Amino acid sequence: MLAVTILGNNSAVPAFDRHPTSQVVTLDGDNFLVDCGEGTQIQMINYKIRRSKISHVFISHLHGDHYFGLVGLINSFSLLSRQQELHVFGPSPLEEIISMQLKVADTRLSYPLHFHTINGQATLVDNDRIEIKCFPTQHRVECYGFCFREKKKPRKLIMEAVRENNIPLHFYDNLKKGEDFVTSGGEVIKNEWLTIEAPHGRTYAFCADTRYNESMIEHIKDFDLIYHESTYLDSLRERAEERFHSTAKQAGAIAQKAGVKKLLIGHFSSKYDTLEEFEAEAKEVFPNTELALEGVTYKV
Amino acid sequence: MLAVTILGNNSAVPAFDRHPTSQVVTLDGDNFLVDCGEGTQIQMINYKIRRSKISHVFISHLHGDHYFGLVGLINSFSLLSRQQELHVFGPSPLEEIISMQLKVADTRLSYPLHFHTINGQATLVDNDRIEIKCFPTQHRVECYGFCFREKKKPRKLIMEAVRENNIPLHFYDNLKKGEDFVTSGGEVIKNEWLTIEAPHGRTYAFCADTRYNESMIEHIKDFDLIYHESTYLDSLRERAEERFHSTAKQAGAIAQKAGVKKLLIGHFSSKYDTLEEFEAEAKEVFPNTELALEGVTYKV
Repeated sequence: MLAVTILGNNSAVPAFDRHPTSQVVTLDGDNFLVDCGEGTQIQMINYKIRRSKISHVFISHLHGDHYFGLVGLINSFSLLSRQQELHVFGPSPLEEIISMQLKVADTRLSYPLHFHTINGQATLVDNDRIEIKCFPTQHRVECYGFCFREKKKPRKLIMEAVRENNIPLHFYDNLKKGEDFVTSGGEVIKNEWLTIEAPHGRTYAFCADTRYNESMIEHIKDFDLIYHESTYLDSLRERAEERFHSTAKQAGAIAQKAGVKKLLIGHFSSKYDTLEEFEAEAKEVFPNTELALEGVTYKV
Repeated sequence: MLAVTILGNNSAVPAFDRHPTSQVVTLDGDNFLVDCGEGTQIQMINYKIRRSKISHVFISHLHGDHYFGLVGLINSFSLLSRQQELHVFGPSPLEEIISMQLKVADTRLSYPLHFHTINGQATLVDNDRIEIKCFPTQHRVECYGFCFREKKKPRKLIMEAVRENNIPLHFYDNLKKGEDFVTSGGEVIKNEWLTIEAPHGRTYAFCADTRYNESMIEHIKDFDLIYHESTYLDSLRERAEERFHSTAKQAGAIAQKAGVKKLLIGHFSSKYDTLEEFEAEAKEVFPNTELALEGVTYKV
């Protein structure tokens, strides 16, 4: 199951019990952390995120509300005697910033920490379960969105048909890959009689901080779920533009133009103490919108 | 009034809703922040600390649980359009760490930020209301405790006696300084008939992270209140020694030997989910001990 749990949905300054950006993308028990604002490790405790299951961290950009919690998390992992390796992806000079702070405290981590500098559109992770790519957004500093694409699962055997046709056990894996079976007598038993297609690999995109930017659409086209920032309401559209942020309506417009199934909005400015209007504005343009609320898990 | 409000009383890793070290020392409306673990700015919101009143920040040492929240606080002050200057005191290379992170984000602060590197015993602040000094402690890295000494107030006029003796208004300040008044006829009216002594300047010491260390006693001798770390209970005294920390009993012993009036203990290890035993152990040695509890203000 692919899902995303929101740990922080506020922009810049913490306010109204909303925290800076962080979320956990989960696929079948693996946790991928996206951004890590100050207090993320405390939010993880509050929302019972299994910290030991976090294998990768992706930092979109080096504004503090997206990464000031990272050094504390890396440090705490070590104090908790973590053993398994951790991969951190982010723009330069993230590695230098973290390494300097660890060095000053004479910290020797209990686990291998690997930094990967992002410097353009790229595939960051590609294994048999998931593919994770990044794409640049339009922000005041170098900034990246992240696309999660679950790998397509193997075809499912129709066991009744498989047994009826006496398919040998050693051929099951070939069936799952879509191959036909040919009997010793030369008869072809078509794969489509023996298997059904698995559901398509689900997709989620974190669109990071960005001004309204149609060039991101190609990266998130037809996605199942996207998270798009909506720092301001439409009445502050000019301010959004100036500060390289988006409004709720603009987030809706991107979702609509990209033909995605569902939109989550977040990164709300501390100017706003309530969030209903964000939802209303985005829904005007794209009805299947939800507010990204802290502690809530959204299944893809 | 001199007082201290605890924002974080835990060591290293946040746990059991306890946060890393931070406290606010208040004197007549001025706020002095001592240490700034991750999440301090959120704790300030929780406990209604007036952030704009913080004029000075003192960082004891560069272990993350004592300063990872500083860069976020400095950044947020700017986002909140702070105007007044901020003075930050701490060991090298604190300035470099913070400056680097501000530079990467292309941050231009809305207010003047002044760093002061501590590199030994020194007087850090000295004005007509307070004197703040630092002293080295014995920790794994360079580390300092901080002593706050309220300046002795001027003597108080006994207005009835002042009027009876026809002391002119312009001489009131001289009376407050302790001078006798001499009439035009040469009669000496003794200061002690006209004024009473103000209460002595109150004193508070934050003794930072340290192993048991009697050399700190000279700095905190006869203080009204001290905060001494007690990371472990006495059953882990050896571990405390190894890791340059103290036990609750050792904190009590320092308080007792220094002849202070009251002891606060904190910096509890995440090994312990309850704190009663810390209090009991310290009280065996020094009865006037209290646990430093988050959100609580202790008046000196």
